[in-house]
Amino acid sequence: MRKIINDPVYGFIILQHPLVLQIVAHPYYQRMRRVHQMALASLVYPGAVHTRLHHSLGAYHLICQALEELKRKGNDITCEEEVASKIAILLHDAGHGPYSHALEGVLMPGIHHEEMSLQIMQALNQEFGGQLQMAIDIFTGDYPKKYLHQLISGQLDVDRLDYLTRDSFFTGVSEGVVGYDRIIAMLTVHNGQLMVEEKAIYSIEKFLVSRRLMYWQVYLHKTVLVAEQMLIKIIQRARLVAPQSGNTLDYFLRQETFDTSSGQLLQKFVSLDDYDVLMAIKLWQQHPDKVLAALCGGIINRKLLKIKFSTEAFDEALIAQKKQAIMVLHNISEQEACYLVFTGVVRNTTYDSSDERINILFKDGTIKDISKVDNALIQNSLAATVLKYYICYPS
Amino acid sequence: MRKIINDPVYGFIILQHPLVLQIVAHPYYQRMRRVHQMALASLVYPGAVHTRLHHSLGAYHLICQALEELKRKGNDITCEEEVASKIAILLHDAGHGPYSHALEGVLMPGIHHEEMSLQIMQALNQEFGGQLQMAIDIFTGDYPKKYLHQLISGQLDVDRLDYLTRDSFFTGVSEGVVGYDRIIAMLTVHNGQLMVEEKAIYSIEKFLVSRRLMYWQVYLHKTVLVAEQMLIKIIQRARLVAPQSGNTLDYFLRQETFDTSSGQLLQKFVSLDDYDVLMAIKLWQQHPDKVLAALCGGIINRKLLKIKFSTEAFDEALIAQKKQAIMVLHNISEQEACYLVFTGVVRNTTYDSSDERINILFKDGTIKDISKVDNALIQNSLAATVLKYYICYPS
Amino acid sequence: MRKIINDPVYGFIILQHPLVLQIVAHPYYQRMRRVHQMALASLVYPGAVHTRLHHSLGAYHLICQALEELKRKGNDITCEEEVASKIAILLHDAGHGPYSHALEGVLMPGIHHEEMSLQIMQALNQEFGGQLQMAIDIFTGDYPKKYLHQLISGQLDVDRLDYLTRDSFFTGVSEGVVGYDRIIAMLTVHNGQLMVEEKAIYSIEKFLVSRRLMYWQVYLHKTVLVAEQMLIKIIQRARLVAPQSGNTLDYFLRQETFDTSSGQLLQKFVSLDDYDVLMAIKLWQQHPDKVLAALCGGIINRKLLKIKFSTEAFDEALIAQKKQAIMVLHNISEQEACYLVFTGVVRNTTYDSSDERINILFKDGTIKDISKVDNALIQNSLAATVLKYYICYPS
Amino acid sequence: MRKIINDPVYGFIILQHPLVLQIVAHPYYQRMRRVHQMALASLVYPGAVHTRLHHSLGAYHLICQALEELKRKGNDITCEEEVASKIAILLHDAGHGPYSHALEGVLMPGIHHEEMSLQIMQALNQEFGGQLQMAIDIFTGDYPKKYLHQLISGQLDVDRLDYLTRDSFFTGVSEGVVGYDRIIAMLTVHNGQLMVEEKAIYSIEKFLVSRRLMYWQVYLHKTVLVAEQMLIKIIQRARLVAPQSGNTLDYFLRQETFDTSSGQLLQKFVSLDDYDVLMAIKLWQQHPDKVLAALCGGIINRKLLKIKFSTEAFDEALIAQKKQAIMVLHNISEQEACYLVFTGVVRNTTYDSSDERINILFKDGTIKDISKVDNALIQNSLAATVLKYYICYPS
Repeated sequence: MRKIINDPVYGFIILQHPLVLQIVAHPYYQRMRRVHQMALASLVYPGAVHTRLHHSLGAYHLICQALEELKRKGNDITCEEEVASKIAILLHDAGHGPYSHALEGVLMPGIHHEEMSLQIMQALNQEFGGQLQMAIDIFTGDYPKKYLHQLISGQLDVDRLDYLTRDSFFTGVSEGVVGYDRIIAMLTVHNGQLMVEEKAIYSIEKFLVSRRLMYWQVYLHKTVLVAEQMLIKIIQRARLVAPQSGNTLDYFLRQETFDTSSGQLLQKFVSLDDYDVLMAIKLWQQHPDKVLAALCGGIINRKLLKIKFSTEAFDEALIAQKKQAIMVLHNISEQEACYLVFTGVVRNTTYDSSDERINILFKDGTIKDISKVDNALIQNSLAATVLKYYICYPS
Repeated sequence: MRKIINDPVYGFIILQHPLVLQIVAHPYYQRMRRVHQMALASLVYPGAVHTRLHHSLGAYHLICQALEELKRKGNDITCEEEVASKIAILLHDAGHGPYSHALEGVLMPGIHHEEMSLQIMQALNQEFGGQLQMAIDIFTGDYPKKYLHQLISGQLDVDRLDYLTRDSFFTGVSEGVVGYDRIIAMLTVHNGQLMVEEKAIYSIEKFLVSRRLMYWQVYLHKTVLVAEQMLIKIIQRARLVAPQSGNTLDYFLRQETFDTSSGQLLQKFVSLDDYDVLMAIKLWQQHPDKVLAALCGGIINRKLLKIKFSTEAFDEALIAQKKQAIMVLHNISEQEACYLVFTGVVRNTTYDSSDERINILFKDGTIKDISKVDNALIQNSLAATVLKYYICYPS
Repeated sequence: MRKIINDPVYGFIILQHPLVLQIVAHPYYQRMRRVHQMALASLVYPGAVHTRLHHSLGAYHLICQALEELKRKGNDITCEEEVASKIAILLHDAGHGPYSHALEGVLMPGIHHEEMSLQIMQALNQEFGGQLQMAIDIFTGDYPKKYLHQLISGQLDVDRLDYLTRDSFFTGVSEGVVGYDRIIAMLTVHNGQLMVEEKAIYSIEKFLVSRRLMYWQVYLHKTVLVAEQMLIKIIQRARLVAPQSGNTLDYFLRQETFDTSSGQLLQKFVSLDDYDVLMAIKLWQQHPDKVLAALCGGIINRKLLKIKFSTEAFDEALIAQKKQAIMVLHNISEQEACYLVFTGVVRNTTYDSSDERINILFKDGTIKDISKVDNALIQNSLAATVLKYYICYPS
Repeated sequence: MRKIINDPVYGFIILQHPLVLQIVAHPYYQRMRRVHQMALASLVYPGAVHTRLHHSLGAYHLICQALEELKRKGNDITCEEEVASKIAILLHDAGHGPYSHALEGVLMPGIHHEEMSLQIMQALNQEFGGQLQMAIDIFTGDYPKKYLHQLISGQLDVDRLDYLTRDSFFTGVSEGVVGYDRIIAMLTVHNGQLMVEEKAIYSIEKFLVSRRLMYWQVYLHKTVLVAEQMLIKIIQRARLVAPQSGNTLDYFLRQETFDTSSGQLLQKFVSLDDYDVLMAIKLWQQHPDKVLAALCGGIINRKLLKIKFSTEAFDEALIAQKKQAIMVLHNISEQEACYLVFTGVVRNTTYDSSDERINILFKDGTIKDISKVDNALIQNSLAATVLKYYICYPS
């Protein structure tokens, strides 16, 4: 049994193992069709409407290549380990809620998507009679061969290789292109750790620069940012003013605390996706609460708040003045105005060698961090987190 | 004022005229973000999640190129005509309802999407003080320069050039690639009609063959077909059994006849999109009506009916037997079984010269239909409509 | 030992077996760097300067994929057979002389390039102690598993798949794109013969249409044609008037008959390539023979003869008149004028089912020729060879 | 009159002005077909066989786009200036000798290719009755509108944009991809100087990183480097030992000093290209001088010297020992051994702000060098020239 899937990015993606096919066919996996990979980025980049499911298939394709490469280089990887690694990557993002990162920590405060992915894997493990145990161990980092975990969740994992490649492809930002095939061909295992060969230095630098570019130009693009902030405000406002409706989203809006140990949360979670949220937003355009209605209309019709960036925090007086104007104009309270006039900060680090660790293995056996090689492009000065302050307000 | 949009297919798309920018910013245009270009094709081709808005921008890009080309060849096209043509193509598909072609004639029986596009243009014309009148005339074919209409809606219009190119790109079916730039470079006007120069013969043949391939391999792919048929059955069933909910979709389900002359229909229409339908399907998974629930669960979880193709109509006895089996198994009536066991026929014509008319202008001034040129690939035998019968039933 | 080669068409090409690496490193293989894949096509398509070596590596890459596919489908292929097939495809074009097809039969009358490829394989077999015997048997069709030969030299061989893909890529004629990966994924062996599965029908049609388009639009493009005809005339004229120079090309110009059984021919052949011919042409620009000098200057400076196509043979009177004009103008004899005014005919067949045989294997086990399937695009009428007559003369 | 040329990189390149067409048709321009853009890089990257002519057409295409963009932004550029800029870029590399940079300063010591390009422009100016004067002034920087010169020869000129894009395309090193269209869309003129808008910061960084990567990974790839060093040694050795042959290359080998003011040099130069050099190398494989024969055989058969890199200069003792070994082995003198055992150094600077000047124009009117913007990737530490020492010797 074999399934061939057409992918505009890599050509053909081949699914082959019975368990892999069963996982992909499962409703928990299929749900990812209804979660956009890039939340509201399509408001700026109209092509960026690809889904978490598509990204997950792409990462699966890359791990197949990476495992082949590591085996070719003499690493002993059993068939069971291969399948387990593939399942771990297929499900690594299954725990993303609606609009992925944009609503992470907002819809389910305190819960990271990886925790939900683990919940899903455990539920499937039960359903499939323990067949996912090794995948879970690899995912959590408990499996002895650490490099299998690093392939899935490390500095050079197939997750990042795929999302940079795929997001760059669908946005049409060609400069984000990453030499994923070259990097994979240079992967190696040394002392049980995933490393890259010396020859890959320039490709790794390029990878980090592409990531930097994609963050500032795409993921944190100011229009994308304001739209996603409006999405957050909508959820926050809806918690206060939206009437009880009994639907799935409602459950998440009413819940005070989220406890992953209860089966109920998972059961609700797997039926929640972008459609629930966007449909609610469509309806709330007519909501009597002016603030909620305004924000929802803004998202649906792409009439976004104005946004300005600054390298320093905005002056309190300026914020107060913007709020005041809006309070008068729309006859709303200051507390209400906070949903329409607000500030925040975004941050990105190009490469922090104390946190990340991309190790280069030299021919003579020495190991150096990518920021420590001769004439490194990626230097200490890039380890600092760059902050950008922003203010949003109605135009 | 100029807006540059990144498109993975063509690179940059440039919007420049104030009216063009206003149209694109309008909620009626932005609504197309929520209508998938290829309905449920993404169930087979996961990349095919692009939207009507994206296609419309692409067709706009191509008409800009085509108009430049025709001007370069000495055709006198005024600035006003240019803008009007661009607006006509931007809005040509604005009248598509949820899931475009898949539900055309189902959700609003008797109403073609072009009629709704016209309604939208007229509403906008009123809103913009008559500025869209020429665009409307070009769209309806009433404008004297017929070739402008043919660019928008003809045998070689920019609509087809874009959707074949774009659908081929997002599905990853590279064979569907069309030499849109070569065809555009060979466009010419003769006797007021749009034609192509002799040199383009092979590109036109290639265009028709790509279209043929895309139809059978993608648009009418059996898995896509069964999913879209299930979608139709869902709507049909919901009309009978879904309780009144008062939401927008409900309006369309309750309506007996559709009258475009009433303003109300348009008003409802512009707030309806894929999200309303998919969200309803998600909810109906728990509907007490077994048939509706089964169909909806099938779409959401990608557990589709089985489908078989045949060159001949299926035997009535076979159909009856399949129905009988399902009636017994699920304890449902024959009338109910018809939603789960059904037959149909799809058809496609490679090129019918009596209907289509792709005219080749030879250097000596003679004009020939593409199917009449020497050693034509596209021959009379391809003018026949090919029928494929299908049967769908639970596996 | 492994060598990774960057290919703009397929990404990475991996060479892995010691014998494969030795063959590729051999001067007989490296010589293909100096033979252009598309002769003088770069005079029209400036990107088309790729070499026979590059094509050969590409075809090698595709046979690696095809062999994997056939093994996955349960065909028993030994490691030895794999290596032999790969070597056979690497060397299948090694016997091409300067400017490949353009001078085939002209520089060495009566000798086909495949005969020379075989000579080269036999010489290498001797050098490598018989290790190429199986490759030779597969190449000549003497090896029992016929499908291995068909992969290398059949209707759907990797040779054609690569050259159409590669030539389309380097010329920039995107319509020539072939779904090589889809076709390879659909290859199968039935009754010991190479076939394609039913699902590939549209891809095969597309492949034949691309070939048709590439022939008429690229390989037989009128400017390419006239340039290559001038090249032929140059060789023919040089045989008569070029003084003995003692260099390698000279050997071929002086030779009356070519005998492949003598070792000397091979020895001379392997040191002959495009550079010898083009360098001679550069020098002959100053040759006292006016005809030779004119033709050579034309090629070097891209001042080509005029060429006209017709569906019928050109009138003798017209030819005579053109010749007469040139005789007077340049004060040359009629026999000399024949090098500057001449006619010819080119021919191409889209698909001749009596000659070619692309077999489709249906799920029910039946086998049909691609031209015999239901609603075939490729029909009998396309089996006829299309002739185009041409006349060339100074402008 | 219009000529459309297919380019695999940009699609269609359109030549339109009569003078442009005449220049392109001229033998001096056509000669660039016979000069490889990337010298011997194809020994490592088999696709990198594109020519100077192709690069020149590509740079022409980009300048057309850049001029359009600058005009759209309100810069007043006359039609005459446009044509002159286009001709300047078409001819900017016409003065490259055989194997371009690899033999620059070797075949014609002391003469830079730009000097020869100027000679060629002047000769054409004479031939075309002064029509190229403005193109010459733009090329030399004497034309008042400095930004036109900067488009052709500056830090962000279309020359670099094209060669990075094109070389990356033909080598298949996808990480070299440059966002040329985005950079061009962000070009602007301020105080008469070419600058880029603030939004382009990340694209410019990406451009500099791509250049860095292309230098170390492609242009200075160790195998490419050793091959090009061997080419240099061949020319140097041939000057001493090659017998007088009277051909064009010979003229350059015999010449003591090169004087561009004499017409003779130009006349010889325009008939010299890669073919003369490679053909000589083929013949010299049989040369009685062992050293010359060995080097020539090495290039032709791709049996290259071994090369090692080091961050420090190689020890004299090591070099002496390698030479000694070769002197004994081949019975040659020390002076002869210097052609087979030699050292050198290559250097590259990522970005030196004291030398280069990529100015970013901020919205508030301030101007900053790309290395001085906030959180710059390109920092002072990258201004240092990186040296790599190498040693070459027979394996």
